[in-house]
Amino acid sequence: MAPDVKHQKWWGWGIEGIPSFNYANKPAFAPFVREHIGLDLDTAPVVPHPDFAELDVPQPRISDDDLAAVRGIVGDDNAVTDDEIRIIHWAGRSVRDLIRTRAGDFTRVPDVIAYPGSDEEVQALLAAAVERDWVVIPFGGGTSISGSLNAEDDEQRTVVTVDMGRMNKLLDVDEHSGLARVQAGILGPDLDAALEARGLTMGHVPDSFTYSTLGGWAATRSSGMQSDKYGDIADMVRGLRMARPDGMVTLRDLPSTSSGPSVREMILGSEGRLGIITDVTIQVSPLPEHREVIAYMFPTWDVALRCMHDIARSEVHPTFARISDAAETGFSLATQKAPTSAIKKVSAFGQEKLWDFLRLRGWDTDAMCLSYVCYEGSPKRIAEDKKAVKELVGRHGGIVLGSGPGALYDQKKFDTPYLRDFLLDRGTVGDVSETAAPWSKLAEVHRRVREEAQEAFDRIGRQGFVMCHMSHSYHSGACLYFTFAFTLGDEDKALADYDEVKSSIQQAFMDAGSTLSHHHGVGTEHKPWMAQDLSPAGVDLMKGLFREADPAGNLNPGKVIDVEKR
Amino acid sequence: MAPDVKHQKWWGWGIEGIPSFNYANKPAFAPFVREHIGLDLDTAPVVPHPDFAELDVPQPRISDDDLAAVRGIVGDDNAVTDDEIRIIHWAGRSVRDLIRTRAGDFTRVPDVIAYPGSDEEVQALLAAAVERDWVVIPFGGGTSISGSLNAEDDEQRTVVTVDMGRMNKLLDVDEHSGLARVQAGILGPDLDAALEARGLTMGHVPDSFTYSTLGGWAATRSSGMQSDKYGDIADMVRGLRMARPDGMVTLRDLPSTSSGPSVREMILGSEGRLGIITDVTIQVSPLPEHREVIAYMFPTWDVALRCMHDIARSEVHPTFARISDAAETGFSLATQKAPTSAIKKVSAFGQEKLWDFLRLRGWDTDAMCLSYVCYEGSPKRIAEDKKAVKELVGRHGGIVLGSGPGALYDQKKFDTPYLRDFLLDRGTVGDVSETAAPWSKLAEVHRRVREEAQEAFDRIGRQGFVMCHMSHSYHSGACLYFTFAFTLGDEDKALADYDEVKSSIQQAFMDAGSTLSHHHGVGTEHKPWMAQDLSPAGVDLMKGLFREADPAGNLNPGKVIDVEKR
Repeated sequence: MAPDVKHQKWWGWGIEGIPSFNYANKPAFAPFVREHIGLDLDTAPVVPHPDFAELDVPQPRISDDDLAAVRGIVGDDNAVTDDEIRIIHWAGRSVRDLIRTRAGDFTRVPDVIAYPGSDEEVQALLAAAVERDWVVIPFGGGTSISGSLNAEDDEQRTVVTVDMGRMNKLLDVDEHSGLARVQAGILGPDLDAALEARGLTMGHVPDSFTYSTLGGWAATRSSGMQSDKYGDIADMVRGLRMARPDGMVTLRDLPSTSSGPSVREMILGSEGRLGIITDVTIQVSPLPEHREVIAYMFPTWDVALRCMHDIARSEVHPTFARISDAAETGFSLATQKAPTSAIKKVSAFGQEKLWDFLRLRGWDTDAMCLSYVCYEGSPKRIAEDKKAVKELVGRHGGIVLGSGPGALYDQKKFDTPYLRDFLLDRGTVGDVSETAAPWSKLAEVHRRVREEAQEAFDRIGRQGFVMCHMSHSYHSGACLYFTFAFTLGDEDKALADYDEVKSSIQQAFMDAGSTLSHHHGVGTEHKPWMAQDLSPAGVDLMKGLFREADPAGNLNPGKVIDVEKR
Repeated sequence: MAPDVKHQKWWGWGIEGIPSFNYANKPAFAPFVREHIGLDLDTAPVVPHPDFAELDVPQPRISDDDLAAVRGIVGDDNAVTDDEIRIIHWAGRSVRDLIRTRAGDFTRVPDVIAYPGSDEEVQALLAAAVERDWVVIPFGGGTSISGSLNAEDDEQRTVVTVDMGRMNKLLDVDEHSGLARVQAGILGPDLDAALEARGLTMGHVPDSFTYSTLGGWAATRSSGMQSDKYGDIADMVRGLRMARPDGMVTLRDLPSTSSGPSVREMILGSEGRLGIITDVTIQVSPLPEHREVIAYMFPTWDVALRCMHDIARSEVHPTFARISDAAETGFSLATQKAPTSAIKKVSAFGQEKLWDFLRLRGWDTDAMCLSYVCYEGSPKRIAEDKKAVKELVGRHGGIVLGSGPGALYDQKKFDTPYLRDFLLDRGTVGDVSETAAPWSKLAEVHRRVREEAQEAFDRIGRQGFVMCHMSHSYHSGACLYFTFAFTLGDEDKALADYDEVKSSIQQAFMDAGSTLSHHHGVGTEHKPWMAQDLSPAGVDLMKGLFREADPAGNLNPGKVIDVEKR
C-alpha cells in the first residue's frame, strides 16, 4: 500500500497500539483535573475517534497525466493515492488538525503522496511542480502543530505531498570535526541510534523527537530541551542541501562564514517555501561521560527565575535548566504515580513530610516551583557544577530535592502529546504556546499571558487552566513554554473558542515584547503575528525572498507569510 | 568643513599624527624582511603618499536640486562636498584601495557625504535615493578591506555616501538581560568606554577595532579575536533597526526565535544592499573578574592544531586560543623589541637558552609554533583551566612559555594595519586573507594556500612570504588567517600582480573546502567566489532577496553579488 515508512496513526499522536495516557495509577490526577478545568473523569463521556471507514475522504484531484508524471519520477510503488495515507498526510498534529480530522472535516486533502528516494527525485518533483503548476508540500514526521503541512482550503491545483521518509540514511561522519551528514527524512530515534553506535550524539531532543525528522527540525527552526548545551537547530546545522525547481542549493559545511546575508539562515525556518531540504550536516558530540538530572524546589516563581538567571551568568554550563511555575508544579505533582513498593511508599511519605516542613518554614506550597537542572561531563566537573548550583539555589531560598525526580523527568519527557489526545477524547483541549524573551521581560510575559488567557476563558465561558515552564536559557533571555486546557462546550463553537484562547496568548506575547514562537515555527497558526514580530518592513524582505524563489506559488504556499503572486 | 566625526587619514590606516610602524627598536626585523621578501630596509627608497593638493580629485556630479535635497534632510552642515572628505570616503582600506588612492587613481568618487543624525534622516535619505535614483553607500569607520565602500567605476548616477559617525550614542542598557541598544555609527573604543563605565563589555575585538563601527561589524559579519567566548557579531546582535526606502525594519530583542527564515541573518552581512542599519541591540557581559593570556610553544603546526582541537573538545572555555604557524612564529620573534633593561636582557638571554634547550630535545626551532590562550573568569576557574590546558599542551609535546609574551600579545594586537602602510611606503604589499573550515580540513587548507601562494609568487616573478594563524575556534572547526607579502615590481603591474596572489589564495580556499571569508565580508573583493561558496542556486536565493528589496539598484549596488536590474 505504501513504502516502508513509519507513519503516525491518522487520528492522533504516535503509532497505533502504543497505550495512551493512563491515569488509573495516578491518584491525584482526576481530582486535579476536576478542580482546575471542571472535567470529571468519572462521568465525562469518552468520544474516541471514528472508524476510518465512516469518513468521507475527498477523491484525489489529479489527472492521469500528472499522476503518471509523479510515478515516472519516484516509481509506481512510491506514489500513493490511498485514502488513509492521504489523510495521514493531510495535516499535522495541531489541536485544530486533530479536531477537524476526528470530525472528518477535511478541506483540501493532498492528491498524491510521493516518497522520493534521492536528491534527484526530489529535485525532479519540484521541477515538475513548476512546469505543471502543482503545489508541493514537504512532509517529515507530520508532527507540526503550526499548520505547516496543510494545503490551503481553497487550493484548486494538484497537491503533491512529498514524504521524505525513505531518505533516512546517515551518509557520512567526520568525527574529528564533530560533523555528520544525514538525509533529511530520518526520525529522531533512528538518528540517535545511528550516532550512538559510533559513540556520538546530536543532543537535539524536542518534545516531538519520537516522530519528527531532521529535515523538519531544520525547516521549522526546532529547538530541543538540551539546547543550553547543544544549541538550537540553527546552531547545529553547519551545511545542507536543498532541492529547488531549477537545481540544488549546496551549502558547505562551515563552522562560520561572512559570505553575505546567510543563505543557511534563509533556508532554516523556510517550511518548504524555498524548496525541500534533502540532507543536513549537523554538529555531533561524543556521548557525555556522565549525565545527571537534579531536581530543586523554589518558594516562588520570581525567586526561581532569578536563580535561573544567576545560573546562566555563572561559570556553570548545564545541559538544561528549567523551572515550572506553581501551576505546572502542581500538575507535575498530580501526575505522580501511586507508590507501588515499600521503598516508594516511604519516599511518598517523605515527600508529604517535606511539604509539611516547608510550610513550617513559611512556604506557601501552592506557590512553590519545581526545577530540573541537567549536568553532563566529567564526574569532577559535574560535582563542581552541582555544588555551585546548590549554593545559588540556597542563596535564593530554594532546596535540593535530589536525583530521584530527575530520573522521572527523563522518563516522562515525551508523554505530553498522548495526554493531549486523552483529553481530546474527553472533549477537552490541551495545547501549548511558547515564546522567548529577554530575562528582564520574562516575569511580565508570564503575568500577562496568564491574565490574557484567563480573560479569554471568561469570554468563552469555560473554566480554563494555564501553566508554564522556563527552559532554553541564553545569554540574554530564555523560552517560556505555556500549556493551557479547557473543556469544549458547543461542538460548533469548538474551533472559535480555541482560537479565542490561543490568539489571546499569542497577542500577549507580542504585547509583552516576546516572539511568536521560540521553536514551533510559523506555519499558518502563527502567521497573523509575523508583521508585529518582524515589523511590516521586515516581512516585506521575506516576501521578496519568497516571491523570487517561487513566483507562481508552487512551494507550500500560504505558510509563514502570505505573498501575492506575480 | 565637516561635522565632528573622527575620520581616518585619506591615504592610510588611522588618524594623522599616530606614529607608523617603527622597526628601529626591533633588531631582528630588517634581517627577517631581507631574508623572506628580499626587501632591504637600509636601501629601499621610501615612497610616501603624495600631497593632497597634488591629487586630481574628480568634481562632484550632483545637481543643485539633488544637493539641496540632501541638505534639506541632514542640514547644510551635514552635507559635505569637500574634496578631502570625499576622498576619505571614496574607498575602504584594502590594498587595492590604498594603491589606487596613493596613485591618485580615482574612478568614481562620491558626490556628497551626508552625516545623518537620526533614524528619520537616514530613512529620508533612502526614500530620496529611490525617488531621485541616487546610489547610497553606507559608511562606518571606513576600514573595509573587501571593497564594500567604493561606488562602481562606471556609476553614472549621483553617489551619496552616508557617514554614520554622528549616530554614535549608547541608547539603552538592560543590564539584567545583558543587552545594550547602541547607534550603528559608534566606534569600537567609544562603545567599549561607554560600556566599561557601567562595568560591562561587549567582548568584540576585531583587528579593525580602533576605527570600525558597530554598524559596520553587523553589516559585514565581523568577528573579533575573543569570539570563542563572546561569539561572532551574528551571535551578539539580538535586535536591530534598519532604514529602508519605505520604512524601518524593527527586529525585537530576542535571545532566539522560530519566526521563519531569519530576517536578522538576512540583514547581517548585507553590506548596505538592503538598507542602512541605524541601531543594534547587542549582548553585553559583566567585565571579567580576571583575565590572563598565556603563551605556549609547540614543536610543529600539526601537533599544535591537534592540541587546539583537544582544547575545543575539553571542558575548558577559553576567551581565545590561537596558534601561529612556523612562518608567523618566526615573524613574531623577529618583531620583538630589543631588551632595554637589565631584566629584559635576562629575559632575552633566557629565551635564547630556551631555544637551545629545545633544540637539544630534538625540536627544529624553525618549525615551532607559538600559541596564545586567553582565560577569563574567577581565579579558581582560571587556575583549573590553565592546569587542564597545560596538561593537554604537555601531552602534545608543547611547553608553557608563561604570561610575559601574552601581555605582549595584548599590546600589539592592533598594530598590523600600520605595518601594512609602512611596507606600502617601501613598495611592498602586505595583505591578509582569512577563511574557516572544519577541523579535519584545516591542515589541508593551510598546505594548499601556502603552495598556491608560492606558485603565484613564482608566476609573477617576485619573492613572497606567507604566514598563518589559527584562531576563532568552534565546535566543528576554526578560522585560518593568512598574511602574505611581496615587493612590487613594475608599477603598472602592481594591481595585476596583487590579484594573481590574492586570487590564488581565495581559489585555494574554495578548492580545499573552506569559505571565502570568515569575517572580512564579501564586498567586491570576494564576490567572484560567491557561487563556488554558496552554489549557484544559493546565490540565486540571495539575488531574489536583493532584487525585490532594491529593484532599481540604489542601495550600494555591485557589492556581495551582482544582480541584474529589472
